[in-house]
Amino acid sequence: MAINIPRGTQDILPGVVEEWQYVEQKMREITKRYNYSEIRTPIFEQTELFQRGVGETTDIVQKEMYTFEDRGGRSMTLRPEGTAPTVRSYVENKMYGDPNQPTKLFYIGQMFRYERPQAGRWRQFVQFGVEALGSNDPAIDAEVIALAMDVYRELGLKHLKLVINSLGDLESRKEHRNALIAHFKPRIGEFCSDCQSRLEKNPMRILDCKKDRDHELMKSAPSILDYLNEESQAFFEKVKMYLTDIGVEFEIDSRLVRGLDYYNHTAFEIMSDAEGFGAITTLMGGGRYNGLTEEIGGPATPGIGFALSIERLLLALKAEGITLPIEKGLDCYLVALGDSARDKSASLLYELRKAGFTADKDYQDRKLKAQFKAADRLNVKYVAVLGEDELAKNVINVKDMATGTQEEVQLSNFIEYLLERS
Amino acid sequence: MAINIPRGTQDILPGVVEEWQYVEQKMREITKRYNYSEIRTPIFEQTELFQRGVGETTDIVQKEMYTFEDRGGRSMTLRPEGTAPTVRSYVENKMYGDPNQPTKLFYIGQMFRYERPQAGRWRQFVQFGVEALGSNDPAIDAEVIALAMDVYRELGLKHLKLVINSLGDLESRKEHRNALIAHFKPRIGEFCSDCQSRLEKNPMRILDCKKDRDHELMKSAPSILDYLNEESQAFFEKVKMYLTDIGVEFEIDSRLVRGLDYYNHTAFEIMSDAEGFGAITTLMGGGRYNGLTEEIGGPATPGIGFALSIERLLLALKAEGITLPIEKGLDCYLVALGDSARDKSASLLYELRKAGFTADKDYQDRKLKAQFKAADRLNVKYVAVLGEDELAKNVINVKDMATGTQEEVQLSNFIEYLLERS
Repeated sequence: MAINIPRGTQDILPGVVEEWQYVEQKMREITKRYNYSEIRTPIFEQTELFQRGVGETTDIVQKEMYTFEDRGGRSMTLRPEGTAPTVRSYVENKMYGDPNQPTKLFYIGQMFRYERPQAGRWRQFVQFGVEALGSNDPAIDAEVIALAMDVYRELGLKHLKLVINSLGDLESRKEHRNALIAHFKPRIGEFCSDCQSRLEKNPMRILDCKKDRDHELMKSAPSILDYLNEESQAFFEKVKMYLTDIGVEFEIDSRLVRGLDYYNHTAFEIMSDAEGFGAITTLMGGGRYNGLTEEIGGPATPGIGFALSIERLLLALKAEGITLPIEKGLDCYLVALGDSARDKSASLLYELRKAGFTADKDYQDRKLKAQFKAADRLNVKYVAVLGEDELAKNVINVKDMATGTQEEVQLSNFIEYLLERS
Repeated sequence: MAINIPRGTQDILPGVVEEWQYVEQKMREITKRYNYSEIRTPIFEQTELFQRGVGETTDIVQKEMYTFEDRGGRSMTLRPEGTAPTVRSYVENKMYGDPNQPTKLFYIGQMFRYERPQAGRWRQFVQFGVEALGSNDPAIDAEVIALAMDVYRELGLKHLKLVINSLGDLESRKEHRNALIAHFKPRIGEFCSDCQSRLEKNPMRILDCKKDRDHELMKSAPSILDYLNEESQAFFEKVKMYLTDIGVEFEIDSRLVRGLDYYNHTAFEIMSDAEGFGAITTLMGGGRYNGLTEEIGGPATPGIGFALSIERLLLALKAEGITLPIEKGLDCYLVALGDSARDKSASLLYELRKAGFTADKDYQDRKLKAQFKAADRLNVKYVAVLGEDELAKNVINVKDMATGTQEEVQLSNFIEYLLERS
């Protein structure tokens, strides 16, 4: 009996993998221009890292983690996100001691969440994420946001909407928190059980609730922007100024929140309103997390970052009908007829590849016509035919598939001939 | 308290990750020339896949797998190797129905084995693997071997030794198996307990035993090469001929075996005898596995492939003292003095990056001298200084760090100026 792929995961196969390669290449190119370096952390981490770094009260930690005991009896978890591992590595490797600050990192890696599989939502998915650790300059907030926008835009997306907000500093958040509790408490019985338990623990997350989104108290809820102290306000003004200076358009949405206590100041999301999606869809989110490093056991360090799902990015490209400019085809296909020619073609093929050509030959003992068909399917530039006659004369018959012209070329000159034409 | 990385795993950090990127890029380039396409399978699979595809009797399955129950109660295992998942995907996606045969695939992915951590051996490691499914042509065996050699050689390795063997077809192996049992049985009590249990199950693996390597019966053990039937012999001759034709040197070692029943015909290993390793070290192994597809529930399909560890490849480069030609440095660093200049530099930086330059600026509120030092550390080609004076005159001071020459450039002409010089 055949064995199937685990539910909620997918194989990325030839024909589709080229899109992934293209998108990832673009991410590498853009992060390089922005001077961000790649970091690769392990697929699993000690479970405690996510309990602390993502937060005990989150859905991720409570319901969605792939947690297991390793053979040594330690609790491990397949990473559900990339920020906590990156910060863990930053602390463990004392990157804060490097004179090059901020520490600017990016990652492209598989993440794991045990959710109900649905369109565009996978139990294993890939995130591209960026983290800048060690700077409190609002210009780095604008840089990180601009980088995210560049990735989408340079891939051709047009229907993008950047939404930003400020959650302020600890003091501002405290004031806002009290106002939220005062606002919701009298009528909290009308809200869902999640919201009821959020009221004291984390009232800001009530604003995020999908069930109670339309409750009248939602619209009238106190806005964090009215509770920003002077410093937080000045910080937010600077972020907006830098974004405006570099020509990145944005909207402000005071209901854009982040659940955890160590999130502060800038929060942002990029959405797509492409028709293909039906409704507006959030493509990615990010923000400042000045308290996270301490939470994970490191020195107080400001940080800002984002993560985006490549699966969702590819859906957005589809929704806008964008075809990535992926090169297809091979330079040369060798067609061989007869045993000696077949044998000879193996070493000829090796020479072609050594010279830098993408090339292939038949390995299925196909007849002439079928070999030509194979070349056609592979979309080759040149088909080179070697039969017993050619072999006897030490020549090879080279056909340029674009022009249809055919030439008999000395075998010893074959590679040179193609090099001159490439 | 800080949280540490799981034992036996490593972070790949900036400064080292560039070697990984370079090596992987080379693998992508070479596989492209050879017309192999990338496949990406999930990090975990149903446990049964490896029980069947790697084999119940192997150390991997018996001792080293990261197996866990997911939240739905299904037994999952972090992949310990890449061939079984690739073949699972080949079967599940009916790739055998594609007219382009053989199906030529490669992967670069993390693998997981719970082993005692030691130098060059990690619980999470990365394998580059290649699989050609669907052809019984010995020329594809030579192609796969040549591809592996090309990867090592094009990265600069010189101390390479290719060892090949043939395990023959099922019939040949059966004869050899009987001969091995007859050879070892009378004195099997002198061998380790593993070998004793291998005698009936899989006597070929006795030849592989590290403990009993020096037992006198080892040297006199019947060689598989004496048991190859005519067809198997002819196949092996062809493989050797093709390798010779393309100029890949090899040695034959009849004791190079593969444990599992569905391995047959060609087996190969590439070793390094670089002094830095101390002793000869196996860098990688591969071979034919014509029975694996059926084992996994698909139609009978010939296959050949290999896998190599990137960690070990990097060790081999070190052992030979090879430094990869990795580009370092940035095109431009912006030094800003004074608040208005700082603000202006954010949008200037964005323009630089948009024009394709790798560029950065200070985000730490550093003084002039410290900004210059930062530029130095980043190994930049141009430092561009923007002070209040320059800003007032709408100019920027551009210093070419290679020549030391300095020029005052109109701000509106700044990007153009650098483009002309790049």
